[in-house]
Amino acid sequence: MTIEEPPCRYDATVSELRLLSHIHERSATLSRAFPQVLVGPGDDCALVATPDRTLLKVDMVVEGVHFVPGTAVELIARKAVARTVSDIAAMAGRPLAALAACVLPRSWSEDRADALFDAAAAVAREFGCPLVGGDIAVHDGPLCLTVTVAGTPHPRVLPRRGGVQPGDGLYVTGALGGSLGRDRMGRHLRPVPRLEEAAWLASALGEGLHAMMDISDGLGVDAGRMAAASGVSIVLEEGLVPVHVDASGVGNAIYDGEDHELLFAAPAHVTLPARCPATGIGCTRVGRAEAGPGLAWLEDASGRRIDVSRKGYTHH
Amino acid sequence: MTIEEPPCRYDATVSELRLLSHIHERSATLSRAFPQVLVGPGDDCALVATPDRTLLKVDMVVEGVHFVPGTAVELIARKAVARTVSDIAAMAGRPLAALAACVLPRSWSEDRADALFDAAAAVAREFGCPLVGGDIAVHDGPLCLTVTVAGTPHPRVLPRRGGVQPGDGLYVTGALGGSLGRDRMGRHLRPVPRLEEAAWLASALGEGLHAMMDISDGLGVDAGRMAAASGVSIVLEEGLVPVHVDASGVGNAIYDGEDHELLFAAPAHVTLPARCPATGIGCTRVGRAEAGPGLAWLEDASGRRIDVSRKGYTHH
Repeated sequence: MTIEEPPCRYDATVSELRLLSHIHERSATLSRAFPQVLVGPGDDCALVATPDRTLLKVDMVVEGVHFVPGTAVELIARKAVARTVSDIAAMAGRPLAALAACVLPRSWSEDRADALFDAAAAVAREFGCPLVGGDIAVHDGPLCLTVTVAGTPHPRVLPRRGGVQPGDGLYVTGALGGSLGRDRMGRHLRPVPRLEEAAWLASALGEGLHAMMDISDGLGVDAGRMAAASGVSIVLEEGLVPVHVDASGVGNAIYDGEDHELLFAAPAHVTLPARCPATGIGCTRVGRAEAGPGLAWLEDASGRRIDVSRKGYTHH
Repeated sequence: MTIEEPPCRYDATVSELRLLSHIHERSATLSRAFPQVLVGPGDDCALVATPDRTLLKVDMVVEGVHFVPGTAVELIARKAVARTVSDIAAMAGRPLAALAACVLPRSWSEDRADALFDAAAAVAREFGCPLVGGDIAVHDGPLCLTVTVAGTPHPRVLPRRGGVQPGDGLYVTGALGGSLGRDRMGRHLRPVPRLEEAAWLASALGEGLHAMMDISDGLGVDAGRMAAASGVSIVLEEGLVPVHVDASGVGNAIYDGEDHELLFAAPAHVTLPARCPATGIGCTRVGRAEAGPGLAWLEDASGRRIDVSRKGYTHH
């Protein structure tokens, strides 16, 4: 035989392949629990039953940027999956299937890598979008975990960023600010995608849900984006903004990020219950839209305004 | 006014936001050229017109793992997009839409980052799956570019890995080995997804296209995976394996990776043209399937065999 055994660098019996097989074994029964999964992990692609329109979103978390080194793998996985699912919620969608791509630091043990993937798989199932595929690499750098989610849009309305109309009321779910928390171990690691709340709003308001997005970079910047996309001005009323107990004041509610609450616009005449009936999460009017140059303003009780469109938390 | 201007760490006027706006500007006319794009970049999610079943795949490239530092951004982008599209081809699918998530080294200039995204967008359009979304972060580590592609399965057949039957012929497209090339700047940076060839095989063979996958980790390992998934043995005949001109011998064709050619199985009685009529890419019988323990063997002219299932190029 002329073919020699290949040299060591070709040896494929390494953690990348072992981890893949760990994932495939744990995914064998996926189709039973999630009938939309027609072909799960282990083939070149997954195959998912889809409606005639599919929402697609990718987002990632990077060690040292979105979480500090030493954060528990369960929280890293939860944040990574929840961030992407939160964007599906922001379009009033329902998560259908997820893909995860992970660059592992070379120093990680196999057990830690297994635990990360088990946690990501568990969180994805919890949100209704089982992991149907993924990719793994090992490098000399920080952990990067990228999550893609496909989702089903709401049958009644597709709330985008650009639909705010002058005269609309602006609303948020929950309370804002201080999500980083002490030592950066706060609730930003446990975001709860507002799927139920978004579905409720879409069903209750229908086409009246003029615009919606999730607040990831801070209410000021994100309201600024919505204002710019809609070609209106958004005026946030300082006294109305719900400040989270984790925050020291309304400044945190405006400028901090990683709240992953919903910001949405509806006609001023609409009356919304103070809380989502299904979850009890609050729903608060925080301001209004006016004809104007596509900026977000914070207005105090005396009517003075500052432009808050360009300040917010960025991951640097 | 009680709200102070936020401190510097909240300043959002950085490259992440600027790069996002660069991308959104260049994507404004996407729906005109690609009617499947119902909502493109700039909202919380993209919305894509989908058939009742959608292929989903994620793959990534990491600097120092999949390409050497200093590789041109056009080649990095091409490799990243083509790798994922190649998996869509391996299931005989048609690419529909793509998402890109990129972790940029802090040292990169804005121009270089723009060029990477412009290149990724151009390559994605070339393959019919425009970039409809993405995410960006900046870190102190190597470049990581993750690409997700959604695709439409072929109407006649979904060739998976596990469909090989004893007695089948095994075939490959193109020629194998030596893709890394001198200084790792070889053709692995310019993979050509075999979309046309896969569609032709699916149309010509229908259900007779028993199994298919793309060769990413080397013919030996990938044939071993196909054998294991199918519960058969695959015998690769040494004299039949098409060796690429970039390779020094059949050992490279078996053990090297990153060929991104197709490996497929069809009944032995099928006669295939030597080349794909649409593209002229060769189509070569390389072996056969037998009842056996799920391994891939390389057999020389005298009938001696070695197990090649567990050796191949891994990205370490």
